[in-house]
Amino acid sequence: MNDFYQPRIKPYLNTKSLMPENQETPIQFLDGEIVDAPLFYRRNHFSYPPFTSSFYFLPIEGLVYTPKTFSLQEIYSMPSKTIKVVLECSGDKRELFQPKVFGEQWEKGAISQGIWKGVSLRTLLKSTGLLPTAKEIVFEGYDFGERPDSNQIFRFARSLPIEKALDPDTIIAYEYNDHPIPFKHGFPLRLIVPGWYAMASVKWIKKITVIDKEFNGPFQAVDYVYYPNKENDHGKFPVSTIHVNSTIQYPLNRQLLHTGLYQIKGIAWTGKGIITKVELSLDGGQTWNICQLPTKSEKYSWVPWYFKWKALKKGEYTIKSKATDSEGNVQLSEPFWNRKGYGYNAIDTIEVNVE
Amino acid sequence: MNDFYQPRIKPYLNTKSLMPENQETPIQFLDGEIVDAPLFYRRNHFSYPPFTSSFYFLPIEGLVYTPKTFSLQEIYSMPSKTIKVVLECSGDKRELFQPKVFGEQWEKGAISQGIWKGVSLRTLLKSTGLLPTAKEIVFEGYDFGERPDSNQIFRFARSLPIEKALDPDTIIAYEYNDHPIPFKHGFPLRLIVPGWYAMASVKWIKKITVIDKEFNGPFQAVDYVYYPNKENDHGKFPVSTIHVNSTIQYPLNRQLLHTGLYQIKGIAWTGKGIITKVELSLDGGQTWNICQLPTKSEKYSWVPWYFKWKALKKGEYTIKSKATDSEGNVQLSEPFWNRKGYGYNAIDTIEVNVE
Repeated sequence: MNDFYQPRIKPYLNTKSLMPENQETPIQFLDGEIVDAPLFYRRNHFSYPPFTSSFYFLPIEGLVYTPKTFSLQEIYSMPSKTIKVVLECSGDKRELFQPKVFGEQWEKGAISQGIWKGVSLRTLLKSTGLLPTAKEIVFEGYDFGERPDSNQIFRFARSLPIEKALDPDTIIAYEYNDHPIPFKHGFPLRLIVPGWYAMASVKWIKKITVIDKEFNGPFQAVDYVYYPNKENDHGKFPVSTIHVNSTIQYPLNRQLLHTGLYQIKGIAWTGKGIITKVELSLDGGQTWNICQLPTKSEKYSWVPWYFKWKALKKGEYTIKSKATDSEGNVQLSEPFWNRKGYGYNAIDTIEVNVE
Repeated sequence: MNDFYQPRIKPYLNTKSLMPENQETPIQFLDGEIVDAPLFYRRNHFSYPPFTSSFYFLPIEGLVYTPKTFSLQEIYSMPSKTIKVVLECSGDKRELFQPKVFGEQWEKGAISQGIWKGVSLRTLLKSTGLLPTAKEIVFEGYDFGERPDSNQIFRFARSLPIEKALDPDTIIAYEYNDHPIPFKHGFPLRLIVPGWYAMASVKWIKKITVIDKEFNGPFQAVDYVYYPNKENDHGKFPVSTIHVNSTIQYPLNRQLLHTGLYQIKGIAWTGKGIITKVELSLDGGQTWNICQLPTKSEKYSWVPWYFKWKALKKGEYTIKSKATDSEGNVQLSEPFWNRKGYGYNAIDTIEVNVE
């Protein structure tokens, strides 16, 4: 070595569990609006499916006029749609609930964003038609296994109501960031449901079935349900649209800083409408300042935000970020506590010490 | 793809910060007693040093009879010593302190173990001699930078008292797990101080100086000091020996399990003596069971432990592990709280729900 050796410093996925593989995106350490595939969070219910793509077809059946089976080539040749989408696990930030809940203790990184390309599900359904009794559309994945609450084998399956399924932005995707979808993220085909928590975006789609009732598979009717009470199921309702939310990326919680000028930065996102305002407090929520949004806020995407902070006075600071969306939703001080820990979206809070 | 595609599932380092690089070992997901270099936790005070190894020499100076400068070839050719050593950051588990403290929020993975090979520092000091006034030995690293509490530039430097420096197990290491030490872990030479928290094991050694007083560099006299009080420095004393400790690796905190037979597993370690007993409680600490230690407990090393658990009854369980060492030290329910958050070693505790 004659030249100075400059080692590469990069963030990694943060491992939550390996069987199944659940690893979160190092969201505090990423810049910009696109997460590279290797840093996309991984969230699985089961082992990866045993799978050959050499004989892959996608059947659409059930309450349709013309059941059809699509080859990948057919799907690739149809008019495509490309959308920047934030995918957020409904368990993102679960670790922050008080009282604590059971389940994967996701911190702030069960979220990623990138460019998905595919064909509108609507286009496929036009070619099969829908019978008038059609009520929901069920998407089964190739992945299966045991659930902790049962000894039966289940395949991962979820449904969408007809209206959401027919939204032109609901796509059967085959590319992520201009490349075939990585196997771990659903190759060859993944349903992408913009605006909904990511359990809806079924990976490794095996079959699409149109039904005339409410689907009640365990990933629809047991998991991904808000249970407001610890001891019983009263008042339960399904998880669907992403809540308005924000995350402070820099500084880090409990970081020691010296006096100086800092650029506080983060991201904000929502499932319906667009982010219209991000506010930042440096005094624990007593006063709020407007953050800069250097890019135009777009539907389905997170928007980066910044705030210049002159940290001149030593001491401890409680920094909070609060996003508002075009539907009038705003982050609150307290999250909506629910037994399984979904949809955490309280005002993001960190504490730093200026020495 | 004709064959089933079996994706690789591996844990990664868990990123705490990138400037400087602080990433922790995914300790919950590792087996055995040796951590591969890529998963060894990384803890830096500064950027990696700009560095050329092509002209590397190690000077020993100060209060010695014969100041000397050793080439790497000389060091490699001396009688070597190979030791399995646990290196633990004194901030390991800092995140668990209540009330919370500032600084890197290490979880349970600022710890790694492997095989270090080098020459006893004692051997080098024999060849230089020590003047009778010698009191401490200072080790400077090549790494330098600003500290959060100052605008001055400091080099990372630490001292050892003569007795610890002359312990034959205190080595100037050049290999880790049979390979040259990776650059990020101190190539070409790293001081290894078995039994002490790892701030003592100075990386990229630049110079060794024998002095006749107590060294008071900021990494000796400001950081790596236990401050028992939040508001003042009364009662402070330096961080040195690793505390008796244990970590539950499986199951994970807040994990959902179904009824069945489980092997609870973990590691236990201490800085002085050996681990003599690991106990496990399944009822929040009311009753304790003895764990199996399948390998002989050794000085300086962690020992894996296991406990077979028949989880037959549904409900929430608070699982605790408690290690005892041959010096009679035992983990307590509460950690010794200190302002900078060093040496956390309370009984390890997780909660699981059997559904």
